[in-house]
Amino acid sequence: MGWPSGWAEVCRTLHAGSIPAPISMTSEYLRKTKHMINLNPLQTGGLLTAAARRMLMEWGDGYSICDFCRGKLDEIRNPPIYEFVHHDLPEFIGADIVRLTNGAREGIFTIMHAVTKPGDTIVVDENAHYSTFVAAERAKLKIQKIANSGYPKYIIDIQAYEHVIKALEKQKIKVKLLIITYPDGNYGNLPDVRLLSKIAANYDIPLIINAAYAIGRMPVNVNDIGADFIVASGHKSMASAGPIGFIGMKKKWEKTLLRISQFFKNKEIEMLGCTARGPSLLTMMASFRHVRERVKHWNNQIEKAQWFSREMGKIEIRQLGEKPHMHDVMFFESEKLYEISKHHKNGAFYLYHEFKKNNIWGIKPGLTKYFKLSTFTATREELATVIDTFKSLVSSRSRLTG
Amino acid sequence: MGWPSGWAEVCRTLHAGSIPAPISMTSEYLRKTKHMINLNPLQTGGLLTAAARRMLMEWGDGYSICDFCRGKLDEIRNPPIYEFVHHDLPEFIGADIVRLTNGAREGIFTIMHAVTKPGDTIVVDENAHYSTFVAAERAKLKIQKIANSGYPKYIIDIQAYEHVIKALEKQKIKVKLLIITYPDGNYGNLPDVRLLSKIAANYDIPLIINAAYAIGRMPVNVNDIGADFIVASGHKSMASAGPIGFIGMKKKWEKTLLRISQFFKNKEIEMLGCTARGPSLLTMMASFRHVRERVKHWNNQIEKAQWFSREMGKIEIRQLGEKPHMHDVMFFESEKLYEISKHHKNGAFYLYHEFKKNNIWGIKPGLTKYFKLSTFTATREELATVIDTFKSLVSSRSRLTG
Repeated sequence: MGWPSGWAEVCRTLHAGSIPAPISMTSEYLRKTKHMINLNPLQTGGLLTAAARRMLMEWGDGYSICDFCRGKLDEIRNPPIYEFVHHDLPEFIGADIVRLTNGAREGIFTIMHAVTKPGDTIVVDENAHYSTFVAAERAKLKIQKIANSGYPKYIIDIQAYEHVIKALEKQKIKVKLLIITYPDGNYGNLPDVRLLSKIAANYDIPLIINAAYAIGRMPVNVNDIGADFIVASGHKSMASAGPIGFIGMKKKWEKTLLRISQFFKNKEIEMLGCTARGPSLLTMMASFRHVRERVKHWNNQIEKAQWFSREMGKIEIRQLGEKPHMHDVMFFESEKLYEISKHHKNGAFYLYHEFKKNNIWGIKPGLTKYFKLSTFTATREELATVIDTFKSLVSSRSRLTG
Repeated sequence: MGWPSGWAEVCRTLHAGSIPAPISMTSEYLRKTKHMINLNPLQTGGLLTAAARRMLMEWGDGYSICDFCRGKLDEIRNPPIYEFVHHDLPEFIGADIVRLTNGAREGIFTIMHAVTKPGDTIVVDENAHYSTFVAAERAKLKIQKIANSGYPKYIIDIQAYEHVIKALEKQKIKVKLLIITYPDGNYGNLPDVRLLSKIAANYDIPLIINAAYAIGRMPVNVNDIGADFIVASGHKSMASAGPIGFIGMKKKWEKTLLRISQFFKNKEIEMLGCTARGPSLLTMMASFRHVRERVKHWNNQIEKAQWFSREMGKIEIRQLGEKPHMHDVMFFESEKLYEISKHHKNGAFYLYHEFKKNNIWGIKPGLTKYFKLSTFTATREELATVIDTFKSLVSSRSRLTG
């Protein structure tokens, strides 16, 4: 008998204990997520739907979808990947063409790599995700940064893009790419991407919108906005198991971004043939109807976020960034909570521990004065619990020092 | 109440039918894998372990591991990613340093991008996976191909690498990178990588071994072999949900491949900060003890493959590639099966349909004269069923034409 001999034997062998339990199989590494209130901006938009979980079980094995492939992953008809990539997603975000990627950052690098040359100059907003700067370094680009307005709103002034383009023109430098983050993942600010699209068009410079925190949460139509490229993240905002994302683009970029291998007529060079070739794609597909539906309720999300921001303000925990706020990702400042940390036995980690007691997660351990959170997944009821927890911390401090 | 409001509500909403069932939720798209005999070379090494399936359920949500991160994914201690990436994997493949990637092809592109410049010349074996050529095109490299020996063995002559290096030297062209596929995914041939490592060292040219079909199936020690780089695939050979893989390298390449962002001191540029940041990593970790154990039984796999090859030979289905064969991936030729297809009502697809009846999967639909398969997962008992099916097809043909 050969070994291993398939699935059943693997189960038996593992259960019989003849192979030591894998390191991450011990109970301490199992993730407990039931009944938790999750405020982690990285996670609230990526929680799987029931349908996606089912897909994970069905399609979890390695290259599970590739036996349906005739050479191009996005042309597989059953499961309906073709329909999803060439019909559903373009319609959903109003793009001419969509291609899957291993995530938003990979999408941004792919576009940079396809439309620029090493040494080119690009313009990026200061609020961009760190990986946008790292992707530019990988593509060997010179970065001109658009500073935000600083405390307390951290707003990106879109006109500054035009000033930088003009200033560089005077130095005989042609800007080759513009990037804007919509919204950023710290303050949840939503810059004026329509205006930037007009500027980009006027100067004939391609524009990427990083919509990792937008697509799948709020309505976005890239052709309405007018941008050349947009990138999305499945694991950040489309209820998908990562890593997965996609690029939406105007048809005019097809030949540049989707150029074909000289050796293999159905393989796109920038995609290395194919990208998200695993169960991540099936989860994004399985969650899609839910995601498409939830963006229609974005107004409720905004109302919830604004209500939360107001309630926090009442206990002197101040929301920074744009106000009234238009996104579930928010940044807060609290002098009071910071003061408590100076005297608390758990120091700067007391906030994390107090929240943990109430099964509230997602505020980074060690933060008290400035922290971010997302109200996307939590109900108003759950958010009331969060506010009450903050209240009790603040009032205990009042007792302490009152 | 905000909408959506968490996991429970999503389940209720989906089950209540107020959102239409996602396209891939209909039963026809559910994958039935129970009791099937899987011979698909892309899949046999990627079938998940029970532990990995459990991890998929626990860690399936989007960025589920990132709340444990202090800025560098591979330094997360709980779950023990640090131990896995910096201790277990390097020890497993005998490499100085390991870094995660989104797959073997992404690993190859990353190395190409880090160690070469556009216009550089590299040498690649003809048996390489298509994505190696596409990655070279993406990195804008000139490719010198080492032809295989052709029918029937398709062997890569390692000495030919040296001839090409010397011939190019005479034209004042310095080869910048060598790549060899070990084994290739068509014939399952295992070229002499030790000899190639010596040639690479003599000419001071870095060497990449693409071990997507080796690491996780058979013992591999890259420092023993002497190569600079090796790439592995989790979804192809390490019982992992894709996409995931890793690079093993010599310490001397650390500064080139893992150079750090000038803006973020814990972000590696070529990795865009981090790569396999999802449940794929947890599945690779969960399967690791099993995978480490199974490579110790590689001799049984070779014996099983050679037995299968002999049995197929007895019914005139001839194994091409190296013989005696040293890998579970094999390429077969059958004039008889091809002759049948000419007269069969299902034409070239009859083989696929006949196998489907017996729940045998993995031979590409439409192939009869030449096809590949893998004996890795099937037991001898199951393979006997496969051989019997071939036998009955061949004998029915004898009746037809006898």
